[in-house]
Amino acid sequence: MANQVDPALLVVSAHAGDFVWRAGGAIAAATARGERAKVVCLSYGERGESARAWRDGKSLEEIKDIRRGEAEAAASALGAEIEFFDAGDYPLLPSPELVDRLVHVYRDVNPTVVLTHPLIDPYNADHPAAARMALDARILAQAIGYPAEGEPLGAPPVFFFEPHQPEQCDFKPNVLIDITDVFPQKRKAMESLVAQEHMWTYYTDLARRRGVQVKRNAGPNLGFSTDTMGEAYVRYYPQVAEVLS
Amino acid sequence: MANQVDPALLVVSAHAGDFVWRAGGAIAAATARGERAKVVCLSYGERGESARAWRDGKSLEEIKDIRRGEAEAAASALGAEIEFFDAGDYPLLPSPELVDRLVHVYRDVNPTVVLTHPLIDPYNADHPAAARMALDARILAQAIGYPAEGEPLGAPPVFFFEPHQPEQCDFKPNVLIDITDVFPQKRKAMESLVAQEHMWTYYTDLARRRGVQVKRNAGPNLGFSTDTMGEAYVRYYPQVAEVLS
Amino acid sequence: MANQVDPALLVVSAHAGDFVWRAGGAIAAATARGERAKVVCLSYGERGESARAWRDGKSLEEIKDIRRGEAEAAASALGAEIEFFDAGDYPLLPSPELVDRLVHVYRDVNPTVVLTHPLIDPYNADHPAAARMALDARILAQAIGYPAEGEPLGAPPVFFFEPHQPEQCDFKPNVLIDITDVFPQKRKAMESLVAQEHMWTYYTDLARRRGVQVKRNAGPNLGFSTDTMGEAYVRYYPQVAEVLS
Amino acid sequence: MANQVDPALLVVSAHAGDFVWRAGGAIAAATARGERAKVVCLSYGERGESARAWRDGKSLEEIKDIRRGEAEAAASALGAEIEFFDAGDYPLLPSPELVDRLVHVYRDVNPTVVLTHPLIDPYNADHPAAARMALDARILAQAIGYPAEGEPLGAPPVFFFEPHQPEQCDFKPNVLIDITDVFPQKRKAMESLVAQEHMWTYYTDLARRRGVQVKRNAGPNLGFSTDTMGEAYVRYYPQVAEVLS
Amino acid sequence: MANQVDPALLVVSAHAGDFVWRAGGAIAAATARGERAKVVCLSYGERGESARAWRDGKSLEEIKDIRRGEAEAAASALGAEIEFFDAGDYPLLPSPELVDRLVHVYRDVNPTVVLTHPLIDPYNADHPAAARMALDARILAQAIGYPAEGEPLGAPPVFFFEPHQPEQCDFKPNVLIDITDVFPQKRKAMESLVAQEHMWTYYTDLARRRGVQVKRNAGPNLGFSTDTMGEAYVRYYPQVAEVLS
Amino acid sequence: MANQVDPALLVVSAHAGDFVWRAGGAIAAATARGERAKVVCLSYGERGESARAWRDGKSLEEIKDIRRGEAEAAASALGAEIEFFDAGDYPLLPSPELVDRLVHVYRDVNPTVVLTHPLIDPYNADHPAAARMALDARILAQAIGYPAEGEPLGAPPVFFFEPHQPEQCDFKPNVLIDITDVFPQKRKAMESLVAQEHMWTYYTDLARRRGVQVKRNAGPNLGFSTDTMGEAYVRYYPQVAEVLS
Repeated sequence: MANQVDPALLVVSAHAGDFVWRAGGAIAAATARGERAKVVCLSYGERGESARAWRDGKSLEEIKDIRRGEAEAAASALGAEIEFFDAGDYPLLPSPELVDRLVHVYRDVNPTVVLTHPLIDPYNADHPAAARMALDARILAQAIGYPAEGEPLGAPPVFFFEPHQPEQCDFKPNVLIDITDVFPQKRKAMESLVAQEHMWTYYTDLARRRGVQVKRNAGPNLGFSTDTMGEAYVRYYPQVAEVLS
Repeated sequence: MANQVDPALLVVSAHAGDFVWRAGGAIAAATARGERAKVVCLSYGERGESARAWRDGKSLEEIKDIRRGEAEAAASALGAEIEFFDAGDYPLLPSPELVDRLVHVYRDVNPTVVLTHPLIDPYNADHPAAARMALDARILAQAIGYPAEGEPLGAPPVFFFEPHQPEQCDFKPNVLIDITDVFPQKRKAMESLVAQEHMWTYYTDLARRRGVQVKRNAGPNLGFSTDTMGEAYVRYYPQVAEVLS
Repeated sequence: MANQVDPALLVVSAHAGDFVWRAGGAIAAATARGERAKVVCLSYGERGESARAWRDGKSLEEIKDIRRGEAEAAASALGAEIEFFDAGDYPLLPSPELVDRLVHVYRDVNPTVVLTHPLIDPYNADHPAAARMALDARILAQAIGYPAEGEPLGAPPVFFFEPHQPEQCDFKPNVLIDITDVFPQKRKAMESLVAQEHMWTYYTDLARRRGVQVKRNAGPNLGFSTDTMGEAYVRYYPQVAEVLS
Repeated sequence: MANQVDPALLVVSAHAGDFVWRAGGAIAAATARGERAKVVCLSYGERGESARAWRDGKSLEEIKDIRRGEAEAAASALGAEIEFFDAGDYPLLPSPELVDRLVHVYRDVNPTVVLTHPLIDPYNADHPAAARMALDARILAQAIGYPAEGEPLGAPPVFFFEPHQPEQCDFKPNVLIDITDVFPQKRKAMESLVAQEHMWTYYTDLARRRGVQVKRNAGPNLGFSTDTMGEAYVRYYPQVAEVLS
Repeated sequence: MANQVDPALLVVSAHAGDFVWRAGGAIAAATARGERAKVVCLSYGERGESARAWRDGKSLEEIKDIRRGEAEAAASALGAEIEFFDAGDYPLLPSPELVDRLVHVYRDVNPTVVLTHPLIDPYNADHPAAARMALDARILAQAIGYPAEGEPLGAPPVFFFEPHQPEQCDFKPNVLIDITDVFPQKRKAMESLVAQEHMWTYYTDLARRRGVQVKRNAGPNLGFSTDTMGEAYVRYYPQVAEVLS
Repeated sequence: MANQVDPALLVVSAHAGDFVWRAGGAIAAATARGERAKVVCLSYGERGESARAWRDGKSLEEIKDIRRGEAEAAASALGAEIEFFDAGDYPLLPSPELVDRLVHVYRDVNPTVVLTHPLIDPYNADHPAAARMALDARILAQAIGYPAEGEPLGAPPVFFFEPHQPEQCDFKPNVLIDITDVFPQKRKAMESLVAQEHMWTYYTDLARRRGVQVKRNAGPNLGFSTDTMGEAYVRYYPQVAEVLS
């Protein structure tokens, strides 16, 4: 049905830790299949998601360094490349310049799958801002007339990863993936974020909960074990399929 | 990831023609892969979808016979089995007995994919009634305690096929399939419905239109030809996937 | 653009008073234009909307008589015919028999416009039940194969009239009509419902409020006077228009 | 602002276990405050939610007995009364008779708060059926003309408790309660359902997860401890409040 | 359940009059309880909501002065502080600078309740712009790393007050408050807006209408008098409650 | 009911071709009635909708010239005036300056009907950006205090024209118009866009499809011929009507 394009995963993350908690399984699964995975962190999450460091009296630059180091370690645990735009957080302000930088990334990586935040989050305005830029840049990268090197992008599917309070973000998962095999890598990546130890348990529990839903929605006859771990996503564009399944 | 179950397609259709216009491609594709496909027509559409025959002065029984013959020919063109419940149409009245008959079909066929109408249709109350019964029966068939022979059903995905005025039915396709290869069979099945010749063109045009969307959403680099034909579906339960794609 | 059909208005009301408060203006406007208007009251509202009579110790039959008399007087004030199905209220139970009776009314009246309750009302289950039957019967009446005398119905537009707590019923008006000229008739009809005097003021206030919205949405240049009275409706099917306006 | 009515909690549950997993905290909190709490189980969940017993070869009557015993023990642990309608499950068929029985319960208990299932559940048709009957009966019980002993019901608020896959049921919590103090009673009630041990952990995890959201939405300054346990609800009617808070 | 924080109400209003018509009751109730209430008017409404003054030939500066005086008088009648940002209206342009000013207000007032416009208004783009900035600033003020004096904000609930055409703004009230006792203060505040006399009646009628809904949703047994006055709100975040009621 | 205002149609289009495919029928119908119609193209679509020219190696200025020429020819075929803002596309960046230019157009044209893109389009961010500016400018033009020559605008209705993938844009048509009589002019305008020949067929097919819906929703008795051509629109504000029809 299709020409061959090398699979590549692009993850657009507002802050340095988001890609770990929310999409670590999908990233690890891609790299385990030998595929390229690249994470773009638009900011370090230095103001909004580094409460402990601020309470410890660190300076802004120190906090950025800490967060960068942690995120690099987490990306390494997942087998992914990582790039930081250092665009500032709280607020992460959308701009044509940031979108243009993302277009260049799209043209360079030529992703076959894109992951980012959902478009609604009443608890965090940076997340939707990142998602909006990721989507806008994807459209621009498709246009042959857009002034950036490389070939026009195809139409890679976009998946929104899970926010912290999914129901409040109108996050209704329509894709559940089994991440059991790569959960050790995700756990290791989570543990790279040393300041947020309470989150390790929280997101391990969540993986188990989504794993239960994997089993429920796949059916009891399909051999998922009782300790299936899962991640939940919302597919943004219609799926193009050869077979209904 | 899963035990092996023989793939089988179950289609629950309110009237004798619905499965042809709306899902003929998916059915033909399944049988072309060597899979079992079974269509259940809850009614013949004898009152609500046989205007020409009524204008020609046919009796109710004659009309049912005509519709049955046409539907059998269409199913044959698609390589599918067909069963008629003869439950009456306009209105198709839901009942525990009809649902129970459907449970027995589920237990017998053990479908891995289910197709039916969407749950909303302001132009036709039989369509949502059929869908509701198809969904209720699927849930009952999953319960070990339900008194019907056979093994409890797994959790086969359900797809709603396309209604006549999709936007008015809140039908927002999230799966588009390429039916180019099997379109000749679908066309032949359509032509089995001899009284509705104006629909042949209409649904051929629609297949072309959905084909354009297949190409758009798959991306220009993926080698879909310019004459791709498509069908649109709404997946009702979350997709369980091994790979995001 | 169209063949000529005599305009006729059909109103399907769950209880004896609903058509007055919610659609009295539209009914009076139709009859003022010389058009036929027919109201079907599925019940008298004898249990659910006759609190005062119950507190006064009336019997069920007495209450029905009172309600019938009031509703007849109101219909008379609006220039409309009225028919009572006496199907019981609280609950008004949907049934194939009631729907069939409505089909016969459709075939007899051949309405060009249909008014009924909205499909959602968390405060009153009879209202959605009435609306659902009105819609189902309209579809059945369109089918040439449905066994009822008369010609198959065309496709008359359906408008939902305003419920008591519109926001809670997801009632988002998309048609506002000016009832200033016929408001005296509506007021007279309201006053026929002698036991509900507090409602006269309430629905007069509402008419003024909707009148303000008529002016707002029509624009200040269009000469609506400051005492415009209005009614709000939700159009259920797409409008077919010759001119966008 | 209001006359005094003795607080009483009414819980309408489709199956014998639902009230425990989903609302055990709210029930225990009510009885801990000295309030009356009554649970109505429309069925025992004998067919749809007793898989292990069926696999163990129990008869239908044996299964009902087991489920009744477990549910009574759970209600006892929560300090609640319990009544079984034995209306059958899978399917739980709505009927005017069942609704009428519920009206009598409303008139008897005169609840100031009502808990039931949400109106949407693609995995279980009994749950919405129970909710619909609970809501319909509440409206009927408000009508002075409804033939059941007792005073007309007021307007008790209704809360939907949490379904198994909340996002798929469009369950967007708008009330989060702190159940930390009564969690031991809820845990004990869960353990009364001896055949479903895997659920004890699942719903303990869920309580912790909802507890995190209690803390998040209440604010860090409000002194919730790190081991807050919570339950999530959807309020169906507008809240009437004296103070915005 | 919580540490003690002094209650304080913050109201973010796009134009000088909005807080009076839409939230005057809640403000007066707060100050009547001895609580602090502060109103921020982002603009004077000098272009978009001062039609009479423009028709009278006033200059821009004169109009601003008039509006400021009226708003100060209204705030005084309600017992509230008021601050004007003079950011311009029609359009009110969102900017990082305005959001930053609001963050400083949040840190200074430390509100326990926030009131602002709903996020949708097809008739007025300034209203959603104000709401968006109020929400963004609230999130920023929560971050310890945000560079503004004062303690990080907790998680005060946000309520949207009622727009002029609620249904068109998807405004579905989920909180109704009784403002009967403080309605005289609200009326006095309305009368401070001397150029908009037709609005006094309009919003008095609205208060009566919402009062009817207070009674309906609280139940007839709760002793609301027939002249209850109300205001309607939409709660944006889930309510955190100790008791379901 | 209303003062007389000369009818005038204003169309706000993101790119040079949009108004042809999506609204050519409505424009031709207006000018055929002798009404003024003016199209504003915010950009030429030079980057995002001129793939063939880019592949042919044209320069940016050449492409703009080509697109301008085509759009002028199309406007001429429809009898409409056309103005180009040359604001750039892919991305079309919203700005106060562009909105202000649109306000001046509104004040000059004094439209009685406005057409623009829908507010959602996951495939093209320029379309919602254009719609947002068109709507914002309409509101500003209504304010007597807005500094632009001419009289304040009334409240012209706004209609969204059809996007390329309507369901994905939540485009649920609520107005269908018959464009049969003016379809030759629309076809001629389409053919002015010489580089997009495949679109001529696509949008001719779409007109036929929407024509079928015109017939369906108008009813079979109304004399629409079998080759009715249609266009679909979404009305944004409530319709103000004298008669329900």
